[in-house]
Amino acid sequence: MAKPFLLGVLGGMGPLATLDFQHKLLQATPADSDQQQLPSVVWNVPQIADRQKALAGLGPSPLPQLLQGIEKLNQAGASHIAIPCNTAHHWYDELSRASNAPLLHIVDATMASLANLAHKPQRVGLIATQGTLDAGWYQQRLAQQGIEVLLPNDDELQQWFVPGCYAVKRGALHEGGELLAKQAKALLARGAQQLILACTEVPVALEAIAAPFLAQTCDPSQALAQQCAQIWLDYHHSYSTHIQRNNSNK
Amino acid sequence: MAKPFLLGVLGGMGPLATLDFQHKLLQATPADSDQQQLPSVVWNVPQIADRQKALAGLGPSPLPQLLQGIEKLNQAGASHIAIPCNTAHHWYDELSRASNAPLLHIVDATMASLANLAHKPQRVGLIATQGTLDAGWYQQRLAQQGIEVLLPNDDELQQWFVPGCYAVKRGALHEGGELLAKQAKALLARGAQQLILACTEVPVALEAIAAPFLAQTCDPSQALAQQCAQIWLDYHHSYSTHIQRNNSNK
Repeated sequence: MAKPFLLGVLGGMGPLATLDFQHKLLQATPADSDQQQLPSVVWNVPQIADRQKALAGLGPSPLPQLLQGIEKLNQAGASHIAIPCNTAHHWYDELSRASNAPLLHIVDATMASLANLAHKPQRVGLIATQGTLDAGWYQQRLAQQGIEVLLPNDDELQQWFVPGCYAVKRGALHEGGELLAKQAKALLARGAQQLILACTEVPVALEAIAAPFLAQTCDPSQALAQQCAQIWLDYHHSYSTHIQRNNSNK
Repeated sequence: MAKPFLLGVLGGMGPLATLDFQHKLLQATPADSDQQQLPSVVWNVPQIADRQKALAGLGPSPLPQLLQGIEKLNQAGASHIAIPCNTAHHWYDELSRASNAPLLHIVDATMASLANLAHKPQRVGLIATQGTLDAGWYQQRLAQQGIEVLLPNDDELQQWFVPGCYAVKRGALHEGGELLAKQAKALLARGAQQLILACTEVPVALEAIAAPFLAQTCDPSQALAQQCAQIWLDYHHSYSTHIQRNNSNK
């Protein structure tokens, strides 16, 4: 048997987005009892240098604190690690090299989730931090699928996205939701058929205001949770089969 | 300076109650940014022998798995540990002896919270597992304050409390909420002026159905979260003062 399944969650970016991800893990796991639920260890330490400022050259790198989290999760016995923060994936390669447990990638999970849509969208709007937009992860992968990508412009980011995102981080969910909804509506008005909420603060805020266009959104945090739940269900199934086989051999 | 503050949460009992506690930690912490939020490491591993069955003599002890969680949280650097499960406090002494980090006690936190009520209730209803009721923690402390305690009877526990509690554990929040509300209303009908929701599954379910009597309840999980937040705020304040002092000495 492989190492026992234990999901390590590198959280704290922000702490509410981490809880939202944990809720999505529970929702993605069918279970009749506590004991069937996905086991996890969550490093929810938000004392990490600001990712957006670091990538804009306006602050220190969060890498030392991210590496500390990866080390703690490995020490605790994590078999897999998920990071419910898109922007932090900027440091994915460095963190992967430092980790024994494989790191899942939120963009892979999102692309797998998009591939399951009944109707493939032709134009997708991407809501994300400047750092995530600059990295181009989503744009490249969507272009490979022949999907056109619409991006927020600089004015929209400054007026709506950035203040909306920081409002969520200080717990002002409704204020954040209203601002982020303006960003979302602008992309829909330009012809986006689907929105990728590629910053984990965004779905929390849009759900808090019950935004009417939620059905047209794809949530990378949820896609990542579903991928984690699937790994757990496969592990749990093969473990149960292994026990049954051992028992029937006796 | 003391060891850096890091709250260890011994969770998984059940996993949804752990998330509810984490939400209450966030709500109890005023913060303007991610960096001001309370840092925590959460051992949310629900593969723990059933506490209710163990105390009824119907299953193995959860102590080995609880001790493993305490060990992991200490290894991760926890400065304090909270356990958002009342029944698990049955093993509080053994866990305390095995832990370098002090374990907060959910009953202490609840009594402190009750002491802050503007109007001290004369009669309190206690909703809890058979194991927590048998332990008598709440009854003894309330009696010391001259408060009369009303308990669920055996029929109520079997009909409402136990199935309500297990419904929450399999994610059936509304079903659980309706059952637990019957338990709550029975205690209110017998004259309870305040209810102590002394099983961490109960507030989750009653909040899910927006039970009309929530204002008359005292939530030990929330009381524990408030105690943790206060320790963090005191630490954070003294840390900031320390930094300021050092800077002004330069």
